[in-house]
This record gives sequence, C-alpha cells and structure tokens, in this order.
Amino acid sequence: MPFTLQQLSDLEDIKQLKSAYFRCIDTGGMEELRTLLTEDISIDLRGGSYRARLTGRNNMVNFIGSAFNSDVIAMHQGHGPEISFVDDDTAKGLWYLQDIFIDPIRKTNTIGSSIYKDVYKRESDGWKINVSEYDRIYEMVVPIEDLSNITYSHLSKHGWPPEKRVDVMPWLEFYD
Amino acid sequence: MPFTLQQLSDLEDIKQLKSAYFRCIDTGGMEELRTLLTEDISIDLRGGSYRARLTGRNNMVNFIGSAFNSDVIAMHQGHGPEISFVDDDTAKGLWYLQDIFIDPIRKTNTIGSSIYKDVYKRESDGWKINVSEYDRIYEMVVPIEDLSNITYSHLSKHGWPPEKRVDVMPWLEFYD
Amino acid sequence: MPFTLQQLSDLEDIKQLKSAYFRCIDTGGMEELRTLLTEDISIDLRGGSYRARLTGRNNMVNFIGSAFNSDVIAMHQGHGPEISFVDDDTAKGLWYLQDIFIDPIRKTNTIGSSIYKDVYKRESDGWKINVSEYDRIYEMVVPIEDLSNITYSHLSKHGWPPEKRVDVMPWLEFYD
Repeated sequence: MPFTLQQLSDLEDIKQLKSAYFRCIDTGGMEELRTLLTEDISIDLRGGSYRARLTGRNNMVNFIGSAFNSDVIAMHQGHGPEISFVDDDTAKGLWYLQDIFIDPIRKTNTIGSSIYKDVYKRESDGWKINVSEYDRIYEMVVPIEDLSNITYSHLSKHGWPPEKRVDVMPWLEFYD
Repeated sequence: MPFTLQQLSDLEDIKQLKSAYFRCIDTGGMEELRTLLTEDISIDLRGGSYRARLTGRNNMVNFIGSAFNSDVIAMHQGHGPEISFVDDDTAKGLWYLQDIFIDPIRKTNTIGSSIYKDVYKRESDGWKINVSEYDRIYEMVVPIEDLSNITYSHLSKHGWPPEKRVDVMPWLEFYD
Repeated sequence: MPFTLQQLSDLEDIKQLKSAYFRCIDTGGMEELRTLLTEDISIDLRGGSYRARLTGRNNMVNFIGSAFNSDVIAMHQGHGPEISFVDDDTAKGLWYLQDIFIDPIRKTNTIGSSIYKDVYKRESDGWKINVSEYDRIYEMVVPIEDLSNITYSHLSKHGWPPEKRVDVMPWLEFYD
C-alpha cells in the first residue's frame, strides 16, 4: 500500500518536528522546544554510562535546558528516519542519532550514536513528540587536552545560565 | 515534471530501505538485512585502503555479519539522498556516507566519507537494494590510545561471535 | 494545512538541490555547482573564527573551488531540513550542518556545526539556491599530529590545482 497524500504531508511534518527538536536542544531554544512536546511526554534515554528518565513537558524543558546549559557544547543530529502510522493521528518512528557532548569543566567529549524509538501524536496545532526512547549503539568519552581548541560555542551565549538551571539528578542515573 | 504521488511514496520507501540497511549493519541485524537485498545484489566499495567486491545475498549477509562483528564498533549514516527513477520499478540513488569503524584489537578508528551509487528494484514485497557501490571522499585512520575511552558497544552483544563468522578475505583487497 | 502534491514534489527537489550542493563542494564538482545557484546568489557564513561574504554566481564558484582545493579535505553534510514555502516559486529552509575541514599544510582539522538559513527560487530549469547564510553552533580546531593518518583524499585529484585558484581574501574576514 503506497502512502497517501495526507500521510506524505504528515511524514514531512513529523520529520520537521524531530529536526526542530534537535536544533532546539543544541541552540538553547527552550521556548520553541516546549511547543514540540505533548503535555504527558515520557522519555527513557539509555546511554552507555547513564540513563535519563522522566515524564511531563515542564520536567522535560527543565531537564534539557539545565543539562545542555551555557557551560557545555552539544550536537544532536538525527538520520535515517523510519516512520510509520499506527492510526491517522499516531505515528511511530526510528531515528539514528549521532551526538557529541563537550564538557569543558571535566575536559571530556562524549561522542556516540543511538537508535531512537519515538511515538508522535497529532494535536490541534500539529504533530508533537509523545514518547522518546533510545538505546546506545556506541559511546566513547575522549579527553579534551587543550580547551583553547574550542573556538566557538553558541550555547555559551544562549544556553541557560547557572541561576536558571534546576537539579537534573532526580532524572539521571549513572552507571559504575 | 513534478514527482507523482506514487513516486513520492516510492521515494519514502527507498529512503527507509537504505536507512534500515545502515541500521542493520551497525546493530548486527542480519536477519532483517537479508530482507533488504535482491538475491543477485552486487557491491563494490572502493575505500581508501581497501576494496570490497561481491555478488549474491548470502555472500553479502555473511560478509557484513563477519566484518561488523562482536569485536568491533561501526557507525554508518547516509545523508543527502538524490534518488531518481529509471522506470516504474527501478530507481537509482546517491547517498553521502559518513562512517567510523573502531577496531579495538588493532586500536584504530577508521573515519571517513563516501558517495554511494545504488540501484533499487521493486519486488513483490517492496523495494530492495540491487547494486551498491561507493567511492571514498576522504579517509583517516586514527590510533585509539586508551581503549577505556570506549564506554559502550551494542555490537559486542549483538554482533556475530567468532564461531559464526566466515572468512571475508575472498571479497576484500587491501592496498599497500 | 497539509502540503499539496506540488509542494511535496518541490520539497523533494529542494532537498536534492541542497544535497547536490554539499556533494559538489566536497568532490570538486564546480561545473555542477554552477547549475545549482541563481546568478545573484548571496552568502554570509558566520563561522567561529571567520566570516565569508559574497554575491554572484561566478564569485561563488571561484570562492568554493579555490577554498576547497586540491590541498585540503572537506566534509559538509546537511541534516534536519525544515523547509517552508513563501510563495509558489520561493521557499526558505533551515539545515543543520556538520562539517570538517582538514588543512594538511597547517596540520589542523576544523570541525563544527552550523544552522543554515537559505532561500530557494524556482527558475525555468528548476529550483536554485538564492540566499545562504549560517551561524556556527560550535567549532573546534584540532591539531593533526600525524599526517600519515590521512589515507585518502578525493579532492587531491579533483580539487582545483594552484594555477586555477583565485585569491579568496576579498570575501573572507578572520577574527583575532
């Protein structure tokens, strides 16, 4: 069965939704991020050295804004979307993530890849992320020997400053 | 001439096919990989330091499963698909690959990019990869100084163990 | 409002246009690159350590061919397109770039990410890039300690040799 015109339009919307999600994380776009999520969003991100779990849009925005803050650098890019429809207003999707997380304080660069399994819901003003989980495919933590190699950080100007951040530890578990 | 609805649906299917192909390589998904290939698939991957050539679905699954095994880590992500139709049931496509191949035994990380030139065929149960070739754009082999930097490998649990692997040397040529 | 069939076809064309653009930069495809740009193209690329600004198709081809020449290695891959229509023949788009630029003479690898903001125009023979700007999200300049790690460069054979290059300094400003 080929996709219908409505489904192809929805697939484009869902891809743009997830693309905006990644862009907002890495640029400190927390007001826009809020508009991309259902109120009851749940996430479960099973990393190599951590696991992040939470529910609720407010928690999610506080978690992302506080974790990807003005002290760090992040790159999250999603590839190879494999999206299918559960019903007219529900879709599920796989994405193959490549990400980096530079922590200049610990002088580490965590690089890796993950497979996302998401659920998207259509609301009155468009598609939203309802469930987002991933499993790591690989992860490396590489020391940064010379911080002066970092020549630009957008988040340093646009990420949340210390006084705006919340404690993310209720949502994070570290292995080892 | 704009794309027809059928063609746009086929383009989505072909993109999802190639995305599943990359995902299967890096996660050890050899049973699913088998379903993505025509029985007479041919490949010719012209790397910087190697060339891989073979024909036939069984050989391809044995090659991929044995090369991307439980000892190594791989990331293959395809970008910028440029797909066009040769006839209703045949399409050709370019993809811009970024890949890494971590060999903890040799302590090397081979990173690079390639341009794929593929042919896809529609069979009774959907689109399949029929021909897949690439040429390297760049390649670097970087030593891994500290293996403890590697904090997770999905393939270590899901890749083929030594007793399942076949000799890949009939299909591989190394330069120098 | 869902996308129309014509719009979905145009979105596919625009994605293939931008994919060809990145492919041409990294493979020295300057004749094809010329066909992807409006005659009055303008660019403004705000990097971490540089800013590149120019107008005009001839200048653009001379700039790209001279900057991404046979001495260097480049990888430009665009992710997460967020494209919308201004009118039937005009579209605007965001792309999330990941790029590397290896300069074996300075022994540096500049890696980073950027958000592109483009404008596309439909001409008689298809969509073209009319405006292209980006802002850096992050940038690192990493020393290459051992040039023998570089095992392949496509641009070394297909990039512009010294006698073909023009002076790019009229279009480039370096910070610091």
